[in-house]
Formats: sequence, C-alpha cells, structure tokens
Amino acid sequence: MKDIKVGIIGCGYWGPNLIRNFNENYQTDLRYACDLNTERLERIKLRYPHVHATTDYKELLKDKGVDAVAVATPVFTHYNLVRDTLDAGKHVLVEKPLAPTVRESEKLVSLARKKGLVLMVDHTFIYTGAIRRIKEFISAGELGEMYYFDSVRVNLGLFQHDVNVIWDLAPHDISIMDFLVNEKAVDISATGAVHTPGGMEDVAYVTVRFSGGLIAHFHVNWMSPVKIRRIIIGGARKMVVFDDLDPAEKIKIYDKGIELSNANKNSVYQSMVQYRIGDMYAPAISNKEALKVEIEHLADCIKNGKTPVTDGEAGLRVVRLLEAADKSLKRGGAKIKL
Amino acid sequence: MKDIKVGIIGCGYWGPNLIRNFNENYQTDLRYACDLNTERLERIKLRYPHVHATTDYKELLKDKGVDAVAVATPVFTHYNLVRDTLDAGKHVLVEKPLAPTVRESEKLVSLARKKGLVLMVDHTFIYTGAIRRIKEFISAGELGEMYYFDSVRVNLGLFQHDVNVIWDLAPHDISIMDFLVNEKAVDISATGAVHTPGGMEDVAYVTVRFSGGLIAHFHVNWMSPVKIRRIIIGGARKMVVFDDLDPAEKIKIYDKGIELSNANKNSVYQSMVQYRIGDMYAPAISNKEALKVEIEHLADCIKNGKTPVTDGEAGLRVVRLLEAADKSLKRGGAKIKL
Amino acid sequence: MKDIKVGIIGCGYWGPNLIRNFNENYQTDLRYACDLNTERLERIKLRYPHVHATTDYKELLKDKGVDAVAVATPVFTHYNLVRDTLDAGKHVLVEKPLAPTVRESEKLVSLARKKGLVLMVDHTFIYTGAIRRIKEFISAGELGEMYYFDSVRVNLGLFQHDVNVIWDLAPHDISIMDFLVNEKAVDISATGAVHTPGGMEDVAYVTVRFSGGLIAHFHVNWMSPVKIRRIIIGGARKMVVFDDLDPAEKIKIYDKGIELSNANKNSVYQSMVQYRIGDMYAPAISNKEALKVEIEHLADCIKNGKTPVTDGEAGLRVVRLLEAADKSLKRGGAKIKL
Amino acid sequence: MKDIKVGIIGCGYWGPNLIRNFNENYQTDLRYACDLNTERLERIKLRYPHVHATTDYKELLKDKGVDAVAVATPVFTHYNLVRDTLDAGKHVLVEKPLAPTVRESEKLVSLARKKGLVLMVDHTFIYTGAIRRIKEFISAGELGEMYYFDSVRVNLGLFQHDVNVIWDLAPHDISIMDFLVNEKAVDISATGAVHTPGGMEDVAYVTVRFSGGLIAHFHVNWMSPVKIRRIIIGGARKMVVFDDLDPAEKIKIYDKGIELSNANKNSVYQSMVQYRIGDMYAPAISNKEALKVEIEHLADCIKNGKTPVTDGEAGLRVVRLLEAADKSLKRGGAKIKL
Repeated sequence: MKDIKVGIIGCGYWGPNLIRNFNENYQTDLRYACDLNTERLERIKLRYPHVHATTDYKELLKDKGVDAVAVATPVFTHYNLVRDTLDAGKHVLVEKPLAPTVRESEKLVSLARKKGLVLMVDHTFIYTGAIRRIKEFISAGELGEMYYFDSVRVNLGLFQHDVNVIWDLAPHDISIMDFLVNEKAVDISATGAVHTPGGMEDVAYVTVRFSGGLIAHFHVNWMSPVKIRRIIIGGARKMVVFDDLDPAEKIKIYDKGIELSNANKNSVYQSMVQYRIGDMYAPAISNKEALKVEIEHLADCIKNGKTPVTDGEAGLRVVRLLEAADKSLKRGGAKIKL
Repeated sequence: MKDIKVGIIGCGYWGPNLIRNFNENYQTDLRYACDLNTERLERIKLRYPHVHATTDYKELLKDKGVDAVAVATPVFTHYNLVRDTLDAGKHVLVEKPLAPTVRESEKLVSLARKKGLVLMVDHTFIYTGAIRRIKEFISAGELGEMYYFDSVRVNLGLFQHDVNVIWDLAPHDISIMDFLVNEKAVDISATGAVHTPGGMEDVAYVTVRFSGGLIAHFHVNWMSPVKIRRIIIGGARKMVVFDDLDPAEKIKIYDKGIELSNANKNSVYQSMVQYRIGDMYAPAISNKEALKVEIEHLADCIKNGKTPVTDGEAGLRVVRLLEAADKSLKRGGAKIKL
Repeated sequence: MKDIKVGIIGCGYWGPNLIRNFNENYQTDLRYACDLNTERLERIKLRYPHVHATTDYKELLKDKGVDAVAVATPVFTHYNLVRDTLDAGKHVLVEKPLAPTVRESEKLVSLARKKGLVLMVDHTFIYTGAIRRIKEFISAGELGEMYYFDSVRVNLGLFQHDVNVIWDLAPHDISIMDFLVNEKAVDISATGAVHTPGGMEDVAYVTVRFSGGLIAHFHVNWMSPVKIRRIIIGGARKMVVFDDLDPAEKIKIYDKGIELSNANKNSVYQSMVQYRIGDMYAPAISNKEALKVEIEHLADCIKNGKTPVTDGEAGLRVVRLLEAADKSLKRGGAKIKL
Repeated sequence: MKDIKVGIIGCGYWGPNLIRNFNENYQTDLRYACDLNTERLERIKLRYPHVHATTDYKELLKDKGVDAVAVATPVFTHYNLVRDTLDAGKHVLVEKPLAPTVRESEKLVSLARKKGLVLMVDHTFIYTGAIRRIKEFISAGELGEMYYFDSVRVNLGLFQHDVNVIWDLAPHDISIMDFLVNEKAVDISATGAVHTPGGMEDVAYVTVRFSGGLIAHFHVNWMSPVKIRRIIIGGARKMVVFDDLDPAEKIKIYDKGIELSNANKNSVYQSMVQYRIGDMYAPAISNKEALKVEIEHLADCIKNGKTPVTDGEAGLRVVRLLEAADKSLKRGGAKIKL
C-alpha cells in the first residue's frame, strides 16, 4: 500500500534516481517534484504525469498530506530546506553531505529529534550489497583488529564550483569508514592542491588517526587519467579489498597477514615476523540497487519509528570530518583534533 | 676490455645481481666478493670460481689493483664502508639509500669530491627503460606543467628491522621524483602506523609540497594484501601512468585533461572547465636490464670522468627527504621545511 | 521535423531500447507499439502516453500514415512479419538475424528490392564508435593483409529455447566480420556441445576459411563463469584488439608483427623471422549510443533513398553463415562450402 | 645423498633449467653436459666447473656410472637419442613431445618397458602447484560432470622451423587435459593458417570430442599481439579458470552454473534453466618450481621403481593427439577418429 506521500525538492543529477525509486517502491507515493528549472520539471511530467510539478517548494510543505520530503539540491541550500521541512512536520531524506557546517548539521539533528521526525542522509554506499557484506564480515570478527583503512577515489571528474574535491568525493568513503569502524577518530589532517585559477582543491589527501594503531587515509582527485574506486582494509587476521569498478568481484577477502613470534627476542637481526598467505575468496553479493534498499529502509523507519542506519547523527559525523579536513587544508595540513 | 677491477662488499639479497652484472659487463672485472657470512661466499665461489672471496673488506681496500667497490650492505654500515673505500682511493657504487643521515651523506659527497672519485648511488629505477622514457616525455614538454606526482608502492612485504617502511620502499619513488621533477620541494609531512610491538612503521603516507601548484604523495605499505606499484603524474597537457607490474605496457600516456575557458566569467554556477579526452598510447620501451645499463654508465663515468646521473648529490637529496619524513613522523605529521 | 511515422512490433527485451530511441530521434515519430503481452503495453503507455498500443500488428500495417516498422520479435516470426510489412508498403528495421533460413531471407531481400523499400537489419555493433573506428583503420591500409579474425563471446548467459548459442551470440561477431573483411568466405565448419536434455548447443566453435591466408574463428558459450567479449585481428602490419568490456579502452592497436628476411635462405635452422614490437595506442572513440546512430542512419536512408550499411543483403550474408554453421554442426563439424 | 648420476644432452633454451635443477637436487649428481655447440658448453663450464662437457653424446652413454640422461634437443632427434640411451641401460627424461610420430613413441615406450627403465616426459605443467590443485579439486568431485575444456595459448611467439604451432604450444595444454580428464577422446579436428612463405601453421584451432557431452578446444597462435594463457573448465557443479599469467591468483573456482528444473515441462517457451551464481575463491597454491618437483619425482621413480605421472604412455597419448591433429590439418579440418 503506497501510503507514504512523498515530495522531492531538486530534480537535477541525482533527483531522477530518487524519483524513479520512490515511484517503484510499494509503500511510497510520489506526489510532488520541485525544481527551479522548469525544463527539468517538464521532463518529469512526461514520464510521471501523475506527479505535481512545482517551482515553489513551499507548496509541498503546506500540503498536510505529504509525509516525507527528499532534498536533492546543492549542499549550500540544505540547511534552510531541511529546517523548513522539519518545521512543517515532515520526515526528511537529504543528499549527502547533510549540511555545509557542523553547526548547521547539529541544529538539524537537534530539530529532528525535538520533532520526533526521521532525518536520513543519503549515504547510498551504506546500502550496497558490497558494504553490507563487509560489515557482516567485520562484525563476525573475521578481520581481527583493524590496522588501516585506505581509500582511493580518483577520476577525470566533474569539477564542482561550490565545494572542493574533499566535499565532493570523500563523503562516500568517510561514511563507509564511519559505518565499518567502531573506534573513535582522534585527529585529521589534509593536504591538497588547486590547479584552476580561483578554483577549489582538485586533488587532496586526508589522514585520520585513531586512538589505537588504526590509520585511515583518503585520496580524492578530479584530475586522474584513470578511474580508481578502491578501499583496502588491513586487519590482524584477514584483509579486504573493495573495488567498486570490478563488475564481477567487488569484494575480495584475503587470508593474508603477518604473525608475530616471540621465539627470537634476543636475535636483533632475525625476523620475528612470519607471513601467512592463504586463500582469497570473493563472496557473491546482492546486486539489488542500493537506493531501492535505502528507500525501503526509509519507509520502514517512518512507519515503525526506527532510526535509520544513516541518520542525522551519522551525517553529522561525516560533516565533522569534512569541516575539520577543510580547516587542516587551510592551515597547510596541520593536525586538527576531533 | 675488462680493465676496471671491481670488488663487492655484501652478497645478501641484492649483491648477487650486482655480481652477475659486473661479471657480464665487458669493461668490469669482478675480483673480490666480501661478506661476513661464509655460506654466501661459498655459493659465490661455486658460480664464480675466479673471484676472491673474503670476510674482511679491508683486503679489498688494500689491493691497489682494485679500482671500484660496490657496497651492498645494510644502510647503517654504509657510512663507514663508503668512507673507508673512498679513503682508499677507490670509486664507489653504494646501495640506496646513501647513508642513514643527511650529515653522513654530506660528508661522503664532500669526501668523494675532494678525492676526485666517482660516488654513485644504486637508484636502479632511474636506469629502467620506463623511467628514462618518461623523462624524455617530460623534457620534451609534452606533459605541460606538472600538477601532481602520486606514487603507491604496497605489498605484503618483507618487514625490515633496522628501518621503517619509508626508508625501505620510498627511496625508489623519491629518487624517481627527484629525477623527473625540476621544481624545488618546499616542505614534507609524513604519517604512519606501527602494528608490531616495538616495531617500525609498516604503513606510511608522505606528502611533499613544491613552490608552485605541484604536490607529490607517496603511499608505502608492507601489509597490503595486493601488490601495487604505480605512479600517476598529472600534467596540464597530458598525464602518465607508470604501472611497474604491467608486463606488457608499463607506461601509458593519456591525452586527457581540462581546459579553462574565460568565456563565462560572469556565470558563477556555470562550468568554465572543459574536459579533453583523447587517445592513450603506450610507447614501446627498452627492456634492457636496468642494472646492466647502470653498470655501463658507472664504467663510463669512471673511465671518462663523467658525473653519474645518480651521483652522491642525488643520493643526498633522497636522504634529505627521508630524514625530514622521519622527523615529521615523530612530530605526528607536522610539516617540515626542506 | 518528426516526419517519419514509426510503429514497433515486439516490446520485449530489446524493444524498449528501440522505442526510446525512436522517441528521441528528431526525425522519427513513434505512433504504434504492438505486443501480444498487454502488461508490456501498459508499461509502454505509462511512459509514452501518446503512443497507440495494440496487440494486433495488422492495425499498424493498415494505417497509411505509418512509414516504417521495427520488428523486434523472436526470429521464427520474422519472415511473416517482415513480408507483411513490406507488402503493406512500409520500410522495415528488423532484429538480427534477418530470418531463420537463407531462403526466407532471400525472399525478403528480393521483396524489399521489388517494392523499393528500405530493409535494414539491426546489427547494432556496426554502429558503435569502436567498430567504425576499426573499419577506418583497416580501410586506411594500416592493418595490412588480414591474417586472422578471432572472436570470443562467452558468459553465463541466457539460455535460449528456440535457437542455439551460435544463432544467439554469433550474429554479432559475424556481422562485424562481414563489415570489416573484404575477402570472400570459402567454407565454414562448426562444432559444439549440448548440456541440457533436449536442449540446444550451449557452447560452440565456428571456423570460417577464406581464399587467401585469412582464417576466422568464433567461440560462443552460454556456460562460461567469466564474461569475455573480445576480437583480435592480426594483420601483416599491425594488430587490433577490441575488448567490448573495457570501459576505458575498447580498442587497442598494436604496432607488432613479424618481418620476413630473405638473407638467411641457406641456413635451415636459423630464423628468417624478425619480430617488430612497437607502440600500442588506444584511440579515443565516440561513445554515442549505437542505436541512436543507427536510427539516424535509418531515417537518412528512408528520406534520401540510400542503402543502409546493414541492409537486407548484409543480413542475408550473416544468415547464410549461420545456416551453414548449423549444417556443419549436424554433420559433426564437416566443412560446408559457402 | 647425490647418488643418481645424470647426464644432459642439449643445453639450448630449456637445458640450463634442467642443469640448474639437477645440480640443486639433493639426490641427483650432474656429471655430463652435451651439446654440439661449444659456446654453450663453455658457458655451462663457467657456472658448473665440475661437469664434464662434451659434444659427443656417446661419451655419456658409455659411462657405466651414469644412471639417467635428460634429452633436451629438438624433437626430430628424440627418437634416436632416447632409443640409444635406453639401449645403454639408462633412465630417460625427455623434452615434450616424446617423439615426432606415434610409431616412434610406441617403440620407445615398449623399449623402456622391456628394459625396465624409467621413461619420463617433461610435461612440466603437470608438476605445477596450480594443475595439481585443479586435479585434487576434480578428483574430489567438486567440478561435477565436465562440460568443456577450453584452452587459449597465444602470444607473439618464437616461430619454430621444424614444427608448427600445434606441436610447439599445444603439448602443454593437451598434457594438462590428459592429466585432468578421465574420459576417452573419440575424435579430433584441427584447422589453421600459414602466413610465412614455405612456413608452418602459426595459428591453429583444435577440437577434441569425447564420448559424453564433453568437448575440448585449443587455440594456439604465434602471432597474437597480446599474451593469453588461460584454461576454462566448465562443470555441472562448478567451474575453474586457470590463468597462468595472473601472478597472484592463478586458479579461480566459481560456484556458478545452471540448474535444470522439470517443473515447467509443458511450457515450451518458459525457461527450465536456473542460474546459480555463488562465491568465487582462489585457493593458495604451492609456488615451488615445477621442474624441482618433477626432478624429485624422477629421482623417486628411479630409486623406488615407481611409474612417473608423465611416463612414456602419457607422452604417447599426447603425440597421438598431435599426429591426428596434423592429419586433420592436412585434410582441411576433417574429423580424425582416435
């Protein structure tokens, strides 16, 4: 029964995917599509004639019948739109990152809590079969202590004008790290370079340190001649490689590592490190569209009062790292406490 | 005519490759092999019965007939061995890195200069067909302004006991950067993590900043389940990927990049960045063994009074970055002026 | 101006792609969609409310306003549908293969010629940027004499019930060969195996011999654990690899080959073959959707009386090879004259 | 104890590998190296000064102290050399293929049996960790009924002058098939093409049919711009890919396949085939040098009267297929009964 009435604000790059999925979900009923660009609205109307198209998002908010709103607009508009939507008593799904600052993100989280509404951030990767499978693997203790989390996301990408490459690309990988890592980040540092006059950083490296031996590192780049989207997670017992571009085997789990022996403590030059090189396996993973899973989860949260996996708090944690990374960038890579 | 008499000190991991190449070079005549380990010496004797095997390196130094000595011992022994060899009036080829400190490296460079002897550091990659081809490409101006130099060298590697992963792996990539980049490095920072009790950093990230927009980054790791040896160089006109593990196409040159237009200065949100996606080509490169090329170059330098491409100065520049990286590591990633 | 009125018969697997492209082409006006399955028609109606949906294809044929019909139904229905459409005086685009037999194909070709109508077969690959680029390369004489054409198209594929794996997969590669090779095929042989009770061949190997030294070979397989779609073309001057699954570099051109020397005629055991190993390059290719190119070409042929690149004759040549391959299969791999 | 005295005839391309391994094996004592080319002998002497070098193979045969002889000469010389060696009462390890004809191979097998001597053929692949692992996998019933065996071995290879590409490259893959397949081959056919005046086939395709549904196919090519060495084995339960060029994961085992359901017998057009797509895994395999394993096995057979895995019978089975393939080639691809 399509009993969750939904409106969407922002029909640009990602919006049509949300529209398609809200339309196909058996619990959500897409009623409104809002965008300032009327051409986009006409294209939507052609495909979904039953949807009300409007350039004024307040129309959605006034309609008491609308239960939830998806916000898929540029990040600098998130705060006002999400705040108004929550104020209008509607649940919210908002594009990542949640808001341009920690302060605004905190306000939104707090407002949603006060109103008792669902605030979900669209960190889509968390709903992919691959990341969920890695989560199970880690939760089952198969990785052992996590040693490092190394992420590379590079491409000849779309230059953004309002945000740098960290805000554009790193939210994906930071949200994955946030989902998979249980430890608390201690500090962050970031370096990068700008290659367009008056532009934003187009290549950047971000390091996050944790209280234990864990180190996380993110390489994001809009100027790479090759496309790489890979995360390597090293653990004491096993290691995982997530290659999002491998059409057949996105996850590979390696029974590889080192083992320490105490036998030779006295022999300074003799190795105390033994290598373990065992099988590799690539588990079959669900290839169900992540956004479909996510919207089912949103519907479940709305109807049953559950907290989304990627709730406002999760979105806030991501923004906290992004904001601190920016601060470090500005201070030439200085370490920023978290 | 094999008229350069050579002795080698250190017959461990890399020594046998030097021995084989000195033996086969038509100008060098391998006379001595020295190692503290007599088993190793016996294996050498079996293969090269004409070579004098000794556990005492002073034997080589005393022999007036010996013109040049190759030092392939652990790095902490380099300073004394190279100094003694130069003092004995012999040319030196020494394993990378030149010495464990800048101070010692400077002394060796100065001593060699004073004595008028060749001091060459075995930065082997500089003599590969691949790196020489990239050098030609850059020198011809085809890359344009260099935007970034991104290097990854990771593997489930041999843990070292006397040096960390930066000193073990990064000299390769830093020497390549030193060879290819004309600009002057301004500062360096490094972070890493230790996962063995009382051990050395086994994963590390190093960033080098230059006076212009160029940024260099090095990822070295002894604990990776997959082996990656790749350098990506982004330029204003073209981009290069050097994948040392690709048996067929080690170098790929991409006619890709961005082009800036000034047409839309007023339109804040409209893109001024155009993408250029052209052909890729992989030039045929010489697959002559790098060490063979290097020893021919050494012989040429000795006989004709030339300065090696990887002379003591080049070796010193690499040690300067390594030492600064260590300092940054110890200060939690602080930026170290160069 | 959308002045070519089009109807489509068959809205199953491939039909929706035709519909989308006819809808978007600026010269074609999609008027009818026909299918026996009413559910499919409803889905079409939802997306394209202006299209007349019908289960009776004769409705299209009766409408004098319809200029062209696309037939995207199972192959065993092609003959009747195409014949009726031509008889009704309408141009035809028909799915590959043209018809289940040479005899029927010939009749259709002859009927189209008699009626002066365009008969085009949807050999889509011919309209990809990759294949058109290879065609240019060969036409410019850069390949030299063609030595072999080796095609592999394997996957854990969709088992078909009415045709074997040759009829299902090989039309793609045979049409590519037909487009790229100028020489005349002399004979064909095929072997295969059946692994389902009462089923069709699910793995097969087809060899085509030409009058000169050229040999062509096709490996098609519905039971492969890995997906491979690759054609290697060896020539006297250069060689080409077309890897349809490589998202970045679909075509690679190798300056590799052998060179014959006459110098050593007397020395029986000495090689007279020299290898040439030069650069590889991967030209940038258009990534315009092949079907879009194809429908623009169809419109051009209809309006300007041109002959399609993949006309009935081309479709007939493909069917001729398929039918002969089947004959060879039945005779245990015997050579069939063409 | 090095108590098996060995002589080697033929010190060309492969000989030095045999020499090195005989030298290092703790049971074999390399005494003689024989070659018509004295330069080669000098190189051997330099490395192995204790070995008697000779241009006359009869010297070895006369020496009563010699227990076993390795023959690594061109194939056309095998028959005479192996026969003489067996006649002299010595065990034999001979390069693949055993002999140029079935008739000669049979004579050698028969002679060895009569003399009670070990006759082993150097089908090296059988002793690799990869092939032994696949054998275990098949023997354990994990593959299920074997459906197809598809082999590709192509490269810009060394043109041979005395044998065609089938005799040069296919013995590897045919011996692997012989080792892994339990069923009996029924017939064979082969096609190929010649691209050098007066030369041998440089590209060829060989099909072997078995009594059940199994089909085997071999693609061998000296003129490929890319190097491929891959065997795909499809089974009813699982499938295996052996990629000899993958440095990390030579074997991949796929839990993929089809399952037949009888539920829909009446529905002609409805699928009765279900797909099963499960995990892939790449078992860790021994990377011990195959030749080392092989020579240990040879020593074991000689000392303990065992029959080698790749004995004369196995070598004969390979020659039988090669000879039949040649016959088919000459008859234009006609099917040859086995």
